[in-house]
Amino acid sequence: MSDLRIRLARREDVPAIVALLADDMLGKGREDASDLERYYAAFDAMDVEATNNLYVVETDALPVAGTFQLIYMQGLSLGACKRAEIEAVRVHADLRGQGMGTRMFDWAIEKARADGCRLFQLTTNRTRDDGQRFYDQLGFEASHVGYKMKL
Amino acid sequence: MSDLRIRLARREDVPAIVALLADDMLGKGREDASDLERYYAAFDAMDVEATNNLYVVETDALPVAGTFQLIYMQGLSLGACKRAEIEAVRVHADLRGQGMGTRMFDWAIEKARADGCRLFQLTTNRTRDDGQRFYDQLGFEASHVGYKMKL
Repeated sequence: MSDLRIRLARREDVPAIVALLADDMLGKGREDASDLERYYAAFDAMDVEATNNLYVVETDALPVAGTFQLIYMQGLSLGACKRAEIEAVRVHADLRGQGMGTRMFDWAIEKARADGCRLFQLTTNRTRDDGQRFYDQLGFEASHVGYKMKL
Repeated sequence: MSDLRIRLARREDVPAIVALLADDMLGKGREDASDLERYYAAFDAMDVEATNNLYVVETDALPVAGTFQLIYMQGLSLGACKRAEIEAVRVHADLRGQGMGTRMFDWAIEKARADGCRLFQLTTNRTRDDGQRFYDQLGFEASHVGYKMKL
């Protein structure tokens, strides 16, 4: 894992990112890799939003070994706080349990801090028991209830 | 409450919005209305982000009777879903318990749907019991744990 590199996603990464998103206990029922056009369109929409960045993790063995999305949100609340939110975190099945998630979060947290964020937030589905242990260990506080509504 | 109007916040609304943010069980320890400059700077930063919009609610009696922030986040996950997140929701103390929160949420959900979002999300502090009842009643699903880390 020493050769891990994190960089902004490029358009040609989209199929590999979608494959990572789909190779997941919840994602497998939600993604459709046979319809890549809508994912390319989403990538293009994100690409012009300076506050919304998609990252991939490269290793020597795997060009797309992991992915996450980091969104910055300036607000007035919390003393005019800019916050960072992380979404769509995935580690390639071959590399799970080897510390890559921690490396990704350390990097994302440091990046957000360097970019002036004073709060880092995420939600994780209640059914992801491993996720909750992971975030507890990273030092996150499970202070909030995460509500969702499909539109 | 029939005269309620929702509009984008303007720079001159900042002091009234900060007063609303501070008049709250958690906000009162987090906001500092004596230092408005940083709130104006935050407003200016938000104002250039097309995906990050601050709203106020007007009534005939109160020019700033409520406020909320609505952020859109395009992503690849969930079938290339664009999601909406609501933050910093406040109702003026004189108007609580009269249905204004529901009107604000109905408006925000409809706006997000019209703008192409397919998921609407928020987190609420576990100590806000009233908040959780409110979101349950609105039809949100408490499917996630909300993690925060101060940077």
